Amino acid sequence: MSRAHNFSAGPAALPEPVLRRAQQELLEWGDARASIVELSHRGPEFMQVASEAESDLRNLLSVPDDYGVLFLAGGATTHQALMALNFAAPGQCADYVLTGHWGKTAIRQAGAYVRVNISASGEDDGFRSIPPRESWRLSRDAAYVHITANETIHGVEFRPAWGEPAPDVGEAPLFADFSSSIASEPLDISRYGLVYGGAQKNLGPVGVSIVIVRRDLLERAGQPRADIFSYASHLKSDSMLNTPPTWNWYLAGLVFKWMIEEGGVREFARRSEQKAALLYSTIDGSAGFYRNDVDPAVRSRMNVPFFLADAGLDAAFLAEAREGGLIGLKGHRVLGGMRASLYNALPLEGVRALTDFMQDFGRRHG
Amino acid sequence: MSRAHNFSAGPAALPEPVLRRAQQELLEWGDARASIVELSHRGPEFMQVASEAESDLRNLLSVPDDYGVLFLAGGATTHQALMALNFAAPGQCADYVLTGHWGKTAIRQAGAYVRVNISASGEDDGFRSIPPRESWRLSRDAAYVHITANETIHGVEFRPAWGEPAPDVGEAPLFADFSSSIASEPLDISRYGLVYGGAQKNLGPVGVSIVIVRRDLLERAGQPRADIFSYASHLKSDSMLNTPPTWNWYLAGLVFKWMIEEGGVREFARRSEQKAALLYSTIDGSAGFYRNDVDPAVRSRMNVPFFLADAGLDAAFLAEAREGGLIGLKGHRVLGGMRASLYNALPLEGVRALTDFMQDFGRRHG
Repeated sequence: MSRAHNFSAGPAALPEPVLRRAQQELLEWGDARASIVELSHRGPEFMQVASEAESDLRNLLSVPDDYGVLFLAGGATTHQALMALNFAAPGQCADYVLTGHWGKTAIRQAGAYVRVNISASGEDDGFRSIPPRESWRLSRDAAYVHITANETIHGVEFRPAWGEPAPDVGEAPLFADFSSSIASEPLDISRYGLVYGGAQKNLGPVGVSIVIVRRDLLERAGQPRADIFSYASHLKSDSMLNTPPTWNWYLAGLVFKWMIEEGGVREFARRSEQKAALLYSTIDGSAGFYRNDVDPAVRSRMNVPFFLADAGLDAAFLAEAREGGLIGLKGHRVLGGMRASLYNALPLEGVRALTDFMQDFGRRHG
Repeated sequence: MSRAHNFSAGPAALPEPVLRRAQQELLEWGDARASIVELSHRGPEFMQVASEAESDLRNLLSVPDDYGVLFLAGGATTHQALMALNFAAPGQCADYVLTGHWGKTAIRQAGAYVRVNISASGEDDGFRSIPPRESWRLSRDAAYVHITANETIHGVEFRPAWGEPAPDVGEAPLFADFSSSIASEPLDISRYGLVYGGAQKNLGPVGVSIVIVRRDLLERAGQPRADIFSYASHLKSDSMLNTPPTWNWYLAGLVFKWMIEEGGVREFARRSEQKAALLYSTIDGSAGFYRNDVDPAVRSRMNVPFFLADAGLDAAFLAEAREGGLIGLKGHRVLGGMRASLYNALPLEGVRALTDFMQDFGRRHG
């Protein structure tokens, strides 16, 4: 067998050179005479890996100096609870702009700790569009305003065609879940108070998450909480308040180096536009055989949900795709149908193989 | 170079056959045509890995059916906060038996959520002994009683020579941090309400933790908390409430299979006794060149802190040890000196190599 083109939404495809390097040094890292998985997180070898990863990520994303970067266990969902605990005073409210499934998750986690104000919602529209900025009803005293930069399931993303991707929300800091679109294009971090995400899409393996936070926000008292739930404590200990997920951090670091070598986020923005354009044009040009329902102004470059007009062909589509070396295409159970995720590690040739297959399948079954 | 004997306290040595298997299939797992790191946690491949790991762990540890098993991101420290949130009512107290550094951590995490009663403490004795059961002052209304089964830094462990390793604490359920001694000998889980630990010592890689919990305890309301902090929600979703750390779970599963093939926990109990006896007898027989201060009744089989009478020789000891293929021996900064961790993946020949080196070093510098 050989490796397939993997369209999984996360855990997702990793760059093959990264996997090969990890494979080569899995038993012995450098001259440590042990695997990186076996070494103390406080030893010189892992400390080097950890600090290089942070510095590479800072370069890659142009993170300003007044922002801290955390590498923590757990995924985005955990941070959706922690951000409320850390940045909202007891009884304070927080504004949520709801644009899909993951925004709902964010609200559910925060609900135990803040008064949630849903400032805008795309739910009435089946999350096919993002409500215009003018319609948002922001609170006067919100601890923060939360958006989901890209909705992995519903396939909607804040894009320039919608308006400013980092919308002006006034005094309150803007918090954004960037799990599935981070490092796919240049990002003006200074527009955000907090950017967070699980690594398992564009940044590497599942099991480590990234938080980029404006340092002055860490002075907020937040709510009574255990030390292990405190971002300030994590930052003070360089993400080593407890034993971090070292191998996951290491693998993310290899992905950062690969992205830098490939040309950085500008290059991945170019590739992402090209990959997404090819797939959407194939869908739109299929005379209704395939369908994507998202408002073109906010179609995600990362996750493309699509449906066959005849859902009775779904099983055949998936089986033939797999046969042809295209995996991870089954849609999320929330929406059904298909979904192709086009993260950084998926090459253009993977999308070409998919669109060729889609056209061929359409001809044979249309 | 070749692989050294690794005495690191965690992350720690892994069985070489496990690393070789993981290396071999890192690019393609089975006929999935992708790495296990790249596959959806909800796909058939990882679901198989996950359920086999749970069933192997249940067999290995003889987990009774009325206990749930969770595989979660984060380490023991996170659970020290979560157990208070999940099992103590607001304002309720919990009893802690403090036998070293990690007991202190447990108390610090829980302090935000429960009234902590320190029922007994070995601190006045420098954590060299465990206070006798008769001296513990247990509360009448404690949500639970917490012990640290083995203290990784101070090297004290509840042993038969001290009394019943799972002490009778009356009505309140006994919660125990087994991070550094789980699966090193048979364990009567039914004596505990909750057994937890990070995997990075005897069970595999860092980045995944295990919770074994009596199901009826999950009916307790606990305290207001986000869903992601709820053990009941995690159990209901088979540890997939959010994306779990799949590779870490997978690697732990390979370690479980290795332990079963090697003879299970009875065999590791035999090996652990033998390894610990060899090292302690070398220390005790060194005429004071080396020293371990722990009460022999509670000396840990897993973590052996020891000191050179002349601390001026520490650097030479560590350098020569490394030269001789013995790594991870530097003591934790809390105690200084040396520490040898003798987890399941470290073979007897590793301890022989260490004790031979210690005797030789002693002869040359004594």
